Amino acid sequence: MVHLHGDERLDYLLAEEELRIIQSPSVFSFSLDAVLLARFAYMPIQKGNIIDLCTGNGVIPLFLSKRTKGRITGVEIQERLYDMAIRSIEYNNLQDRIHMIHGDIKDMPAKLGYGKFDVVTCNPPYFITPNKDEINLNEHLAIARHEIYCTLEDVILVSSQLVRPGGKVALVHRPGRLLDIVSLMRKCKIEPKRLQFVYPKQGKEANTILIEGIKTGQPDLKILPPLIVYNENNEYTKELRKILYGEE
Amino acid sequence: MVHLHGDERLDYLLAEEELRIIQSPSVFSFSLDAVLLARFAYMPIQKGNIIDLCTGNGVIPLFLSKRTKGRITGVEIQERLYDMAIRSIEYNNLQDRIHMIHGDIKDMPAKLGYGKFDVVTCNPPYFITPNKDEINLNEHLAIARHEIYCTLEDVILVSSQLVRPGGKVALVHRPGRLLDIVSLMRKCKIEPKRLQFVYPKQGKEANTILIEGIKTGQPDLKILPPLIVYNENNEYTKELRKILYGEE
Repeated sequence: MVHLHGDERLDYLLAEEELRIIQSPSVFSFSLDAVLLARFAYMPIQKGNIIDLCTGNGVIPLFLSKRTKGRITGVEIQERLYDMAIRSIEYNNLQDRIHMIHGDIKDMPAKLGYGKFDVVTCNPPYFITPNKDEINLNEHLAIARHEIYCTLEDVILVSSQLVRPGGKVALVHRPGRLLDIVSLMRKCKIEPKRLQFVYPKQGKEANTILIEGIKTGQPDLKILPPLIVYNENNEYTKELRKILYGEE
Repeated sequence: MVHLHGDERLDYLLAEEELRIIQSPSVFSFSLDAVLLARFAYMPIQKGNIIDLCTGNGVIPLFLSKRTKGRITGVEIQERLYDMAIRSIEYNNLQDRIHMIHGDIKDMPAKLGYGKFDVVTCNPPYFITPNKDEINLNEHLAIARHEIYCTLEDVILVSSQLVRPGGKVALVHRPGRLLDIVSLMRKCKIEPKRLQFVYPKQGKEANTILIEGIKTGQPDLKILPPLIVYNENNEYTKELRKILYGEE
C-alpha cells in the first residue's frame, strides 16, 4: 500500500517493470536527463558506496538499484520531495539498499565523512538563479531547476569531498556550462574522463552533456558516441527506446 | 606550367574543381582534418585579413580562397613545404590573394603586428614530442605531426596575439587535448564558442574536434551537430561526401 498526496501518481519506472515511483506534475516528475545519467554513470556491480546529490523524488537511486547491489544514499533538501522518495523506496521494498537523507548537500561531507564514496551522481539545478520576479512561481520546481540552494560550484566541491581518490563523479548538465564544469572539476581534483553529448535530433546542436571524472585521475578524456534522441519522424530513436523501455 | 620534385603530384582539391595542389606521400599530403577545418572556420565573405598557422603545403589557404575574397596569409616553418605551397599558389594564380611566409609562428606577432587579423586558423601538430628514438624517422612528417617546433601552448598564445578583439580562432585537434585547449584559450582571452565533434562512425568515440573561439568574447558555448565520417558499409556518409566532393 502507498499513500498518494494531492496530484501524485504511482508511475512505472520505464523499462524497470518491477519498480514504481511517486511523481507529481506540480511538485516533481523525473526527466530524460535523470534516466540518461543513471545509465551513463559507472556502477560497481557487487558492492560499493554510492551517493546521489539533489536526488529529488529518488529517481536516480531507484534506477541505480537495478545496476548495483551496493548501498545507495540520496540527498534532497526539499522535504516534500524527500517524502515522495521515502514512500517510493518503501513501496519498492528497497529500504535496506537505498537510504534517503533530508538535508543540504553542503553539510554532507561533515555529516557522512570525506572520501567515503565510490561514486557520486548528480542531476543538479541547471539555471543560474534569476531575479525574484523572474523565478518559477512554483517553489518546488524553482528549487529543483534553479541554483537557489546550491550552485554548480557547490555540487562539484561537495562531490569532490565525498568521493574517494580513484572514485567517480558523474553529472548531467547543459552544454553552456561545460567549460565551467571542466574547470571546476579540475580545480577540485576531479579529472574529466568520459564526456557524452546528447543531440535532440541528427543535424541539431547538443542540448545535454553527460560527464564523468575520476578523483585524482590522470588526464585522458574520451568523447563517447553521440546520443540522438529523436529520428526524422519525431519518434525516439532505436537507441533511446532501448534506454527508456529496454526494447531491442 | 608547374615543376614537380621527387614524388610530388598535382592533385585536385576535392570538390574545388578549379583548384589543384602539390602534394607528396613522402613529404606532406593534406588530411581530412584540414578539409574539415577549412569548412568549419567562420569566414568573412567580401573582405578580411585571415592567417593560417602551420599551413604545410597551403591546403587550408587554398580551400579558404573559395570562401572569402579577403587576404589570406599562410605560415610554414619547413622550407620544403613552403616551397610546395608557393608553387601551388602560382599554379592556381592566387598570388594576389594568398601570401605565404616561411618562418616560425612564434615570430609572427612581432613581424606582422598584434591584433591585425580577423580570423586565425590552425591544424597544428597533434602529438607531444616523443623521445628521439620513437620519433618519425621522416623529418618532414615528424615536424608536421609532432610538437617539435611549436607546442599547443605556442599555437594558442600566438593565435591570441595575432587576432583582433572580437576576431575568431579556429583549430582542429584530438579529443584528448580538448581540456588543454579550452584552458589555454581562456588563459589567452579566447572564449570557446563553437565546438564540433567528428565521430568515425555511428556508435564510435569521437576522434577529432573542431573548436572556434572569439578573442575577448562572452561565454556561451554551442555544441554543433555531430559529424559522422563513415556509414555501416565503411563508405563516406552523405554529409561527408557533400563536404569532400560537393555531392548533394
